[in-house]
Amino acid sequence: MRVLITGAAGMVGRKLTERLVKDGRLAGRPITALDLSDVVPPTAPQVPGIKARPRAGDVSMPGIAEALIEKKPSLVFHLAGIVSGESESNFELGYRVNLDGTRALFDAIRLSGHNPRVVFTSSIAVFGAPFPEVIHDDFQQVPLTSYGTQKLISELLLNDYSRRGFFDGIGIRLPTLVVRPGKANKAASSFFSGIIREPLNGQEALLPVPRSVVHTHASPRSAVNFLIHAAEIEGAKVGTRRNITMPGVGVTVEEQIDALRRIAGEDVVKLIREEPDEAVWKIVQNWPTRFDTSRARELGFTAEQSFDEIVKGYIEEELGERGE
Amino acid sequence: MRVLITGAAGMVGRKLTERLVKDGRLAGRPITALDLSDVVPPTAPQVPGIKARPRAGDVSMPGIAEALIEKKPSLVFHLAGIVSGESESNFELGYRVNLDGTRALFDAIRLSGHNPRVVFTSSIAVFGAPFPEVIHDDFQQVPLTSYGTQKLISELLLNDYSRRGFFDGIGIRLPTLVVRPGKANKAASSFFSGIIREPLNGQEALLPVPRSVVHTHASPRSAVNFLIHAAEIEGAKVGTRRNITMPGVGVTVEEQIDALRRIAGEDVVKLIREEPDEAVWKIVQNWPTRFDTSRARELGFTAEQSFDEIVKGYIEEELGERGE
Repeated sequence: MRVLITGAAGMVGRKLTERLVKDGRLAGRPITALDLSDVVPPTAPQVPGIKARPRAGDVSMPGIAEALIEKKPSLVFHLAGIVSGESESNFELGYRVNLDGTRALFDAIRLSGHNPRVVFTSSIAVFGAPFPEVIHDDFQQVPLTSYGTQKLISELLLNDYSRRGFFDGIGIRLPTLVVRPGKANKAASSFFSGIIREPLNGQEALLPVPRSVVHTHASPRSAVNFLIHAAEIEGAKVGTRRNITMPGVGVTVEEQIDALRRIAGEDVVKLIREEPDEAVWKIVQNWPTRFDTSRARELGFTAEQSFDEIVKGYIEEELGERGE
Repeated sequence: MRVLITGAAGMVGRKLTERLVKDGRLAGRPITALDLSDVVPPTAPQVPGIKARPRAGDVSMPGIAEALIEKKPSLVFHLAGIVSGESESNFELGYRVNLDGTRALFDAIRLSGHNPRVVFTSSIAVFGAPFPEVIHDDFQQVPLTSYGTQKLISELLLNDYSRRGFFDGIGIRLPTLVVRPGKANKAASSFFSGIIREPLNGQEALLPVPRSVVHTHASPRSAVNFLIHAAEIEGAKVGTRRNITMPGVGVTVEEQIDALRRIAGEDVVKLIREEPDEAVWKIVQNWPTRFDTSRARELGFTAEQSFDEIVKGYIEEELGERGE
């Protein structure tokens, strides 16, 4: 089958591509073609049996979405988007890419009439303060960032387009993905990875928010597992509410740091320097804290059980050693 | 001050116009100009002191929204929209008018930079089944119609644009407005009025759904009161959640008919004929039933206390007699 990934050059896109190539099949069917779309051309893996093509282009620009859908992929992973910090600082860019781009892609699929499975990465930023102690699956979505607004609007389009039979969509609300490999990005959540990643690499990390901040995390590896599971899950089991909050580990920043200390020692932890940043804090304080993700768990989505597990997974996967 | 009403030729738009002209002032300030926009030219009332102008045009068409905002109205009532039944039967029309039209208007206001109060009429169709016994203010919004989806997306835009300071928006989720005067329209909810209005006018009315259906209603007069209150309320009191479910009377269709019987007698009630309609039933069964609208009541929004009151108000206002 043909699989399309938008945002394929991003961190999750690259890990998903690697995984699909390694597995060679999905939902019981062999993957024969892999279309990898991003604004910068993604690296297309060379493997026998899979025709992988990089497709450079911005899905919000005229004609791009139609071209991506032309060959009627059976499965579409829509990961492309502008991150939270940039969506807040550049209003028009965020709406154009995160809303108009998603709608262009969904409309191209609607007009092609071939009804594929569409897996969309949403975010827990669809929720906004004030929150109850634990956020249940039926809690209202009132985002307090433009990014969260754009993600939620995309969720609603996915729900309506699925209900009308234009495609079979599943939206997964990702918690913050930690530990992200590589460099810091413009997401307001970037420091959640930075305070683990930089010290492990012997570098100083800035902590822009108080240590008491509670937040929910899952590893990039779990994100890929969520995506694969969302691609394979039976649509009828999901019902009419097509957007699902994914599980994760809810911890304070202090608890994140404690896990790092247990695994890598006090000298590593000392590389974290507190430097309050009002702009980041203004966004983060409106973010949700802990979730009861019963629905996701009942539908078979799984994640890490502790933050130690997340740190160890990062060391094992990215630093090439066992995290013991 | 200058006031703009979109959808001014509709039932609520006409009643709102009448009320504004009668009051002559709003939020403590005299109304000096009234721009009345609709796809068909609304009737502009001739009154001294108020310059009322009909503005024919579809707000989703290029240039129309910008022209409406050019004179920087201090207050915008955005009522224009395609109704629920038609949004379901004509997918592209609904999205164009209800989503693109709203966004065009909001963007024209954003780009004009004058930060007016914007009052938007949303709908309880933003909620979708399954529901708890009573829907509280923090219950999730998962619409199960394209109309509800478009209204909810507009709410989210209103919230984000307000948060960013482009305007000071209040969205009011109207319950079904009953008894609508005049003829049936294409809204799936049209029969809720029809079964009261037609018998009172000596005509047969069709009931397309079971009598056990529970639904929440408010009168057109209450809708105008909600709009006026939303225009006058202090924005800071409303906080970051700018969309509010309005109060109403939650009753079964049977209880509606009982009220009609008490007020107008059995001969009138006999004019209601049951004729199940699958298309209407399919929409209505996913609609919400009863609400706890504590938030609206705390913010000073008020409606009828019983369905009898709604029927009497209709007779008094539209049939020119006391409903005793």
